[in-house]
Amino acid sequence: MAGSRTGIWLIGAKGGVATTTIVGLLALKKGLTENVGLVSELKQFDHLDLADWNNIVIGGHDIRDVSLLDEAYKMVFESRAIDGRLVEKLKDDLTSLDANIHDGTLYNAGKKITEFAHAKLQALQETPREAVDRLKGHIADFAKANSLDNVVVVNVSSTEPSVDGELFPKTWKELESQLSTSDCKLPASSLYGIMALELGYPFINFTPSLGTAIDALDDLAKSNSTCHMGHDGKTGETLLKSTLAPMFANRNFKVMSWVGHNIFGNMDAKVLDDPENKKTKAVSKDRLLSKIFGYTPQTLVTIENIDSMGDWKTAWDHIHFQGFLGTPMVMQFIWQGADSLLAAPLVIDLARFGDLAKRQGCTGLQPQLSCFFKSPLGTEENDFAKQFQMLEAWTESIKS
Amino acid sequence: MAGSRTGIWLIGAKGGVATTTIVGLLALKKGLTENVGLVSELKQFDHLDLADWNNIVIGGHDIRDVSLLDEAYKMVFESRAIDGRLVEKLKDDLTSLDANIHDGTLYNAGKKITEFAHAKLQALQETPREAVDRLKGHIADFAKANSLDNVVVVNVSSTEPSVDGELFPKTWKELESQLSTSDCKLPASSLYGIMALELGYPFINFTPSLGTAIDALDDLAKSNSTCHMGHDGKTGETLLKSTLAPMFANRNFKVMSWVGHNIFGNMDAKVLDDPENKKTKAVSKDRLLSKIFGYTPQTLVTIENIDSMGDWKTAWDHIHFQGFLGTPMVMQFIWQGADSLLAAPLVIDLARFGDLAKRQGCTGLQPQLSCFFKSPLGTEENDFAKQFQMLEAWTESIKS
Amino acid sequence: MAGSRTGIWLIGAKGGVATTTIVGLLALKKGLTENVGLVSELKQFDHLDLADWNNIVIGGHDIRDVSLLDEAYKMVFESRAIDGRLVEKLKDDLTSLDANIHDGTLYNAGKKITEFAHAKLQALQETPREAVDRLKGHIADFAKANSLDNVVVVNVSSTEPSVDGELFPKTWKELESQLSTSDCKLPASSLYGIMALELGYPFINFTPSLGTAIDALDDLAKSNSTCHMGHDGKTGETLLKSTLAPMFANRNFKVMSWVGHNIFGNMDAKVLDDPENKKTKAVSKDRLLSKIFGYTPQTLVTIENIDSMGDWKTAWDHIHFQGFLGTPMVMQFIWQGADSLLAAPLVIDLARFGDLAKRQGCTGLQPQLSCFFKSPLGTEENDFAKQFQMLEAWTESIKS
Amino acid sequence: MAGSRTGIWLIGAKGGVATTTIVGLLALKKGLTENVGLVSELKQFDHLDLADWNNIVIGGHDIRDVSLLDEAYKMVFESRAIDGRLVEKLKDDLTSLDANIHDGTLYNAGKKITEFAHAKLQALQETPREAVDRLKGHIADFAKANSLDNVVVVNVSSTEPSVDGELFPKTWKELESQLSTSDCKLPASSLYGIMALELGYPFINFTPSLGTAIDALDDLAKSNSTCHMGHDGKTGETLLKSTLAPMFANRNFKVMSWVGHNIFGNMDAKVLDDPENKKTKAVSKDRLLSKIFGYTPQTLVTIENIDSMGDWKTAWDHIHFQGFLGTPMVMQFIWQGADSLLAAPLVIDLARFGDLAKRQGCTGLQPQLSCFFKSPLGTEENDFAKQFQMLEAWTESIKS
Ligand SMILES: NC(=O)c1ccc[n+]([C@@H]2O[C@H](COP(=O)([O-])OP(=O)(O)OC[C@H]3O[C@@H](n4cnc5c(N)ncnc54)[C@H](O)[C@@H]3O)[C@@H](O)[C@H]2O)c1
Ligand SMILES: NC(=O)c1ccc[n+]([C@@H]2O[C@H](COP(=O)([O-])OP(=O)(O)OC[C@H]3O[C@@H](n4cnc5c(N)ncnc54)[C@H](O)[C@@H]3O)[C@@H](O)[C@H]2O)c1
Ligand SMILES: NC(=O)c1ccc[n+]([C@@H]2O[C@H](COP(=O)([O-])OP(=O)(O)OC[C@H]3O[C@@H](n4cnc5c(N)ncnc54)[C@H](O)[C@@H]3O)[C@@H](O)[C@H]2O)c1
Ligand SMILES: NC(=O)c1ccc[n+]([C@@H]2O[C@H](COP(=O)([O-])OP(=O)(O)OC[C@H]3O[C@@H](n4cnc5c(N)ncnc54)[C@H](O)[C@@H]3O)[C@@H](O)[C@H]2O)c1
Ligand code: NA
Ligand code: NA
Repeated sequence: MAGSRTGIWLIGAKGGVATTTIVGLLALKKGLTENVGLVSELKQFDHLDLADWNNIVIGGHDIRDVSLLDEAYKMVFESRAIDGRLVEKLKDDLTSLDANIHDGTLYNAGKKITEFAHAKLQALQETPREAVDRLKGHIADFAKANSLDNVVVVNVSSTEPSVDGELFPKTWKELESQLSTSDCKLPASSLYGIMALELGYPFINFTPSLGTAIDALDDLAKSNSTCHMGHDGKTGETLLKSTLAPMFANRNFKVMSWVGHNIFGNMDAKVLDDPENKKTKAVSKDRLLSKIFGYTPQTLVTIENIDSMGDWKTAWDHIHFQGFLGTPMVMQFIWQGADSLLAAPLVIDLARFGDLAKRQGCTGLQPQLSCFFKSPLGTEENDFAKQFQMLEAWTESIKS
Repeated sequence: MAGSRTGIWLIGAKGGVATTTIVGLLALKKGLTENVGLVSELKQFDHLDLADWNNIVIGGHDIRDVSLLDEAYKMVFESRAIDGRLVEKLKDDLTSLDANIHDGTLYNAGKKITEFAHAKLQALQETPREAVDRLKGHIADFAKANSLDNVVVVNVSSTEPSVDGELFPKTWKELESQLSTSDCKLPASSLYGIMALELGYPFINFTPSLGTAIDALDDLAKSNSTCHMGHDGKTGETLLKSTLAPMFANRNFKVMSWVGHNIFGNMDAKVLDDPENKKTKAVSKDRLLSKIFGYTPQTLVTIENIDSMGDWKTAWDHIHFQGFLGTPMVMQFIWQGADSLLAAPLVIDLARFGDLAKRQGCTGLQPQLSCFFKSPLGTEENDFAKQFQMLEAWTESIKS
Repeated sequence: MAGSRTGIWLIGAKGGVATTTIVGLLALKKGLTENVGLVSELKQFDHLDLADWNNIVIGGHDIRDVSLLDEAYKMVFESRAIDGRLVEKLKDDLTSLDANIHDGTLYNAGKKITEFAHAKLQALQETPREAVDRLKGHIADFAKANSLDNVVVVNVSSTEPSVDGELFPKTWKELESQLSTSDCKLPASSLYGIMALELGYPFINFTPSLGTAIDALDDLAKSNSTCHMGHDGKTGETLLKSTLAPMFANRNFKVMSWVGHNIFGNMDAKVLDDPENKKTKAVSKDRLLSKIFGYTPQTLVTIENIDSMGDWKTAWDHIHFQGFLGTPMVMQFIWQGADSLLAAPLVIDLARFGDLAKRQGCTGLQPQLSCFFKSPLGTEENDFAKQFQMLEAWTESIKS
Repeated sequence: MAGSRTGIWLIGAKGGVATTTIVGLLALKKGLTENVGLVSELKQFDHLDLADWNNIVIGGHDIRDVSLLDEAYKMVFESRAIDGRLVEKLKDDLTSLDANIHDGTLYNAGKKITEFAHAKLQALQETPREAVDRLKGHIADFAKANSLDNVVVVNVSSTEPSVDGELFPKTWKELESQLSTSDCKLPASSLYGIMALELGYPFINFTPSLGTAIDALDDLAKSNSTCHMGHDGKTGETLLKSTLAPMFANRNFKVMSWVGHNIFGNMDAKVLDDPENKKTKAVSKDRLLSKIFGYTPQTLVTIENIDSMGDWKTAWDHIHFQGFLGTPMVMQFIWQGADSLLAAPLVIDLARFGDLAKRQGCTGLQPQLSCFFKSPLGTEENDFAKQFQMLEAWTESIKS
């Protein structure tokens, strides 16, 4: 269906990842940047009927009263991560896009996040059902105004405090009934998931928040013939872990300990500085090693806010392993990447592949997208090379 | 054929890699060490009929008048790379094994290597044919004395000055006739290859030297129904390159430059300190990136002798790549491994898999072993994960 | 007073630092090792009348029922930090020395440390005064039996939970009266300090524990004409901080953040793994930067137990600074040192310099020894180069 | 003499260091930047009568036909090292300054440098004397037009091929007579030195080129009552070496090897890529360790052109040392700095201190400025902390 028109609806649309995604999409539309960093632009995916830059329209939800242009300038001048000339050329487009971004929900988003929101939103009182319906309204209008065939909702909002997914009933029917009560334990990310899935749109959770990672919402996705996937975009240290750990396994090295320290200083770092929110993230970064090795080396993962770093996340990893005859050896790596620039192209890739999956009639979880996630749902595969092969295999199976 | 008796014949049998291989095999025989670092011991290879430790016998060629025990002590006390208690327990076995190691050949081995040899060998004058026949005698005696069903010859001798493989005729018949002349350009490593293949034994070239990497010797292997593979064991920096580069490719990052500096201080380092010998190695370390990326980033690879390092090879790699919107990012790694301990288990693995291949009737090159080599012959595959899958696929196809 | 006989009395005499100190002293006595790492052996200190190896006798206190030889073997085989041949040659001497080590005190040593002690000691009930008197008896016997002119007490026992020094009265007279009560808040390290100072012997606190770092104990030192110094030996990351930070200051770079992560796995690491004990250490590692810069960059220091590291402490530091025109730049360092081997020579140096100070009639704190400490008492100087010059200036002023 | 007017005359005025120096001075004049990175702005130098930003005028020589503004943009967009907003604000000033930069000389500047020059200059034929006189004319006009009391000439031009200083006579009188011949072996940097000194102006050699580092030119400086200093600005790896090596010495560690690899990609890197020019640099980077240690560890220093790095110079240093009991340990550091931004403030500092020295009547070499140089002339002091104390001592001795 060449020429199909696709919306990308970003939750957290004025955050670092979203702003960079938007700058990038605008630049791609105008031919101002190359396709570096975009997985969906690799030659092995050429035959796929992926959404063209010109057929993509952007909208979203956020909770802060800021302008996209100011947020883009922060990436240029505070973080020195985006070339200023690019933002200069996109000034007007960025300013216009502010109109496409609407007030989201703070339902169970936690204290830290609520502090960031503008006053009116902080004051708003809604049941989950009311919130979901209001949010759905925004997307429906957006889809209509822009004659969209499909809208992929991608959650790139702040990491929420952790919630135990086991608390919730297993079927959509049971869960649905809780939405009208005000002591429903679902966090905002799940409400956004419901918003998307009820509309029959794909939902992608790029964050470690709960989102749709519970049976009841998978049930909803399937009954509405749509798909979803998550969670937590794999952009830096974990990408390297899932690339390097299989090598250690295949060489039969015995990894004794794997220590990783991450420092960065953007708004995400400030949110994760809150112990409640950090917990959600640390779990997500640490679970894959045991799965790959079949045993559990001692691990330590920290993620700390260091203001001066801005969007630059630096990870130092120290891998202590035994070689032949038990001799201890060490590999260390240092990763210095601009976090939002690592994430943004994957958001675009996920939106395109998610859109394609929906058009292909795929429903429920989409494990063929696991290479994009730290903790991929619906699969136990954590080896990056094999995850990538799953994506290739799926796309090969699609006639264009 | 459980219980098949296998010889491992090491060329360079008193070098660091060989000594460690021997210490390791003796320790495995006596149950003094775990199987860490041995690929052939991974559970996915359990069903294969690989040679048991107790059915393996060791012999070899070298050119120096030193004892295995002294060389083992160097690994313990100079390099601090092997636990002294282990060598203590293997003292007598190591001493006995000296008798299994015979004078090799210095034919076209180059000035640097010749300097290391004992005087009598330096003085020896032979045509290549005479040399090959003398060397074959050693193995034949060894096989007979130990009732061996097969002998795998593994070249772990010093890296020779580089030779252009294009100089040689394409068929064994043509090449064979050159062996009787004294201006034959074949280096020692190739004579060892001929020695093995003429006897119908597999030949594995763990070094970057020429060995059997020419058509005429593949011809010989096939006509003698035996197999061979090379070259240059993949133990450190290149292992990481072949693991990490595919990740950069799969994420569509644009690698602008990849710089690698290697320092170490063992005898191999001293040999490679000679520009002629180093050339052979540097080529071998640098060719895979373009193959993986499909374009050629700027690369720089050095390998330098630093005495104090002993057997510890430290590599620092600096990978400069563009992410989304052209933003430059950096990954660096530091690898600190004991070189001979990284190599030795692979020598054992290669001998076991080579032995199996021969028993399976495989002839010619064995690209399913490419994961063990920096510059695998007979395949263009340089992605470590895929190379490993080739090995798994081959072994899966074998009924035990 | 050439030929003066000196005792070194180690608190924590069977710990990693003490064991290494003892192995080192025995090796120096027998000429089995060079003087690498010993500051007191630098040529600029040649003219000083420092205690000769042969005139040094070792004794100490500990709380665990283990043998010095076993602890030394741990350094050889678990940590791979000491050459096994050395311990082999000192076997008998180490075994004899066990007899010189007596039961210390657990008074206010905290839960974590008490767990390590042998049962009899755990059960022992004493007032601080009784404990001090018992401990003094051990040293008095030791001094007499070995005809010692002086005994330097060095605290290398486990780091205690932190205690607020402000709690205690300012004069020895007032403090002394608290010793007979059983709710006295002084920790064990301070009792050891009192033990030394009451005997007129110098006390050196190599740990971050309280020790003699309160006015009342300085008062005691002065009235007994003896000296003391502390605290927390400067052996790794902090040594580098106090060396590098002055360079950043002298170049007028603006350090925005300084992050330091430390991992190690010996018994000290296990003690510091307890949050109460860790607090004492972290404070000690972090205070010098503001003093050197005159402003406070954002800092982060962690120190974590990773079992596989044994005695090897690895520190990764990331220094983010502004250069000219505000351009952000980065320096990172990685320090890989064997902790006890870094500490032991300094223990010997401090004992020798402390002994000399006492013989020179110096009383109270000895800030000329500040280069050996993370948090030197009695001085605000934290620049390592200047601290070292203080030591040189003091020794130059001494006629030999 | 507050209000004294000072010229800074840059040789290589359109290079990376010079352009950054000029951008910086213009920004300081307009209050657009802080004084980070400027040593002369440290509080301990407050009392000195150093030239005010507003009393400094800039001129210089170069050999290329490029505009300062374009070169400044390169630092912004190619190297991402200067904030673009700053250059935007200085556009007009930079453009005007092009008029103050005149054609220099290529006399004995070597093949590599000559290639960069514009055609007319390549064709120009002059004796050294003619060249010096022509160049002096430019400065004389500049001084007059701007009513300058003093002009400090700073050489920041490309590193020349190495020349043996021993070739030249020891007195100015003898050397002077060679200037009229066309086979005079003096390189361009020395002609610039003569130009300055003959005019009675200070000459500072920020490069490793010969400049005034020969007796005959020190003779000239003294007889003309002016001063000079060099050579090779100490901005990165060597700064760290001269800071860290004294610590290793003071702890009596035995440094076995010190390996340093440097990569960068600006125009300086391209010049140094020529083996003749690189030789001049490598010598300069490697001599200080033996002086500090009193013995010579194995060293290795490379400096390589990697295009993608632009002005960012990354150094990885691996320091292998023995601690107590001979145990080998490792310190590594990684330095990531923008080369021209590290150099530029020192150029300004040197000009200000050189101007002050001249006004103070200092003649000949100025070793109190040694902290700014890799290979300081007129002193054997290579310890950075001590060099800095020399500067402090000198300035303290000056009444303001
Ligand atoms: N490399 C990466 O950047 C990366 C990788 C994996 C995951 N993530 C995750 O992506 C998310 C976004 O990262 P970021 O760096 O852009 O963070 P950010 O803090 O810059 O942006 C988050 C945005 O979400 C908005 N927001 C918060 N709660 C909201 C709510 N309830 N509804 C609507 N908007 C809300 C905030 O106002 C903000 O604009 C985080 O959860 C992060 O952990 C990022
Ligand atoms: N990680 C690794 O150690 C590694 C990885 C890949 C390849 N290799 C290669 O393996 C080889 C062995 O490495 P090493 O560290 O053991 O080196 P080494 O120098 O310790 O040992 C080489 C041995 O070969 C012997 N020798 C040299 N020429 C010979 C000849 N013509 N015939 C017989 N013996 C000869 C030498 O006497 C010596 O004992 C080298 O070519 C090296 O480049 C090693
Ligand atoms: N580089 C270094 O190793 C270094 C540097 C600075 C400071 N320190 C400090 O030195 C101390 C010793 O370090 P270590 O690595 O040898 O630790 P360790 O745990 O190996 O040894 C401590 C010893 O003290 C003993 N001990 C504990 N409480 C005692 C008490 N109340 N009385 C007598 N003995 C007692 C323990 O039984 C143990 O034998 C620690 O406080 C550490 O923080 C070490
Ligand atoms: N951190 C640093 O950047 C640093 C540190 C120490 C020394 N240096 C030295 O400073 C010098 C300048 O470095 P850069 O990065 O600015 O180099 P660059 O190549 O950017 O600039 C050199 C400039 O000198 C000009 N030039 C060359 N030969 C000349 C001549 N004979 N007369 C007049 N102009 C001439 C060139 O045209 C160019 O504009 C180099 O020698 C470098 O080695 C730089
Ligand atoms: Na982020
Ligand atoms: Na080797």
